[in-house]
Amino acid sequence: MTHPTADLDEVVHQRVRLGILAVLAEARRADFTFLRNSLELTDGNLARHLQVLEGAGYVAIEKTFEGRRPRTWVHATAAGGRAFQTEVASLQALISRVTEGREEST
Amino acid sequence: MTHPTADLDEVVHQRVRLGILAVLAEARRADFTFLRNSLELTDGNLARHLQVLEGAGYVAIEKTFEGRRPRTWVHATAAGGRAFQTEVASLQALISRVTEGREEST
Repeated sequence: MTHPTADLDEVVHQRVRLGILAVLAEARRADFTFLRNSLELTDGNLARHLQVLEGAGYVAIEKTFEGRRPRTWVHATAAGGRAFQTEVASLQALISRVTEGREEST
Repeated sequence: MTHPTADLDEVVHQRVRLGILAVLAEARRADFTFLRNSLELTDGNLARHLQVLEGAGYVAIEKTFEGRRPRTWVHATAAGGRAFQTEVASLQALISRVTEGREEST
């Protein structure tokens, strides 16, 4: 049987990108500042990981203006939502394996 | 509140290393060939990630001989076991957040 970690998609699994997709799963869309603050990232780090997610087709980025103030909105695409749900299912499978093992050994 | 991904330890969270520590949590110790096959890795990839885990003090590696045949055993250290449990707890927190959100929105 394949180990649950063998199929993990590294684009989604990486710590920062997993955080971004988790916030977007909760919030539908989020602006750059909100993501940066929620996930405790620097501008550069967030921008880099958003680029990877956008390149994979997992998020869409929209630059708007509110008055003269630029605002960058991010939302998960359908593919991004599916990739995140697949990741969550793999993590649940991993946790079940480990948790069951622990119960048997006590 | 800190997002559950903000505290993830990248040494442990990385896909291959998470797999190694998960197998070691189930099996106490495992040999190199078993890890490689279970996790569907190449020799080089497994060796590289074991080195990172050993450098962090999370696994100990023991080279033995069975007759003339070399065999490499790997087990998690106490620190490695704790780091893995912390990771699992963070992943559980992440999954709860996302799963609760999903139930509320339906």
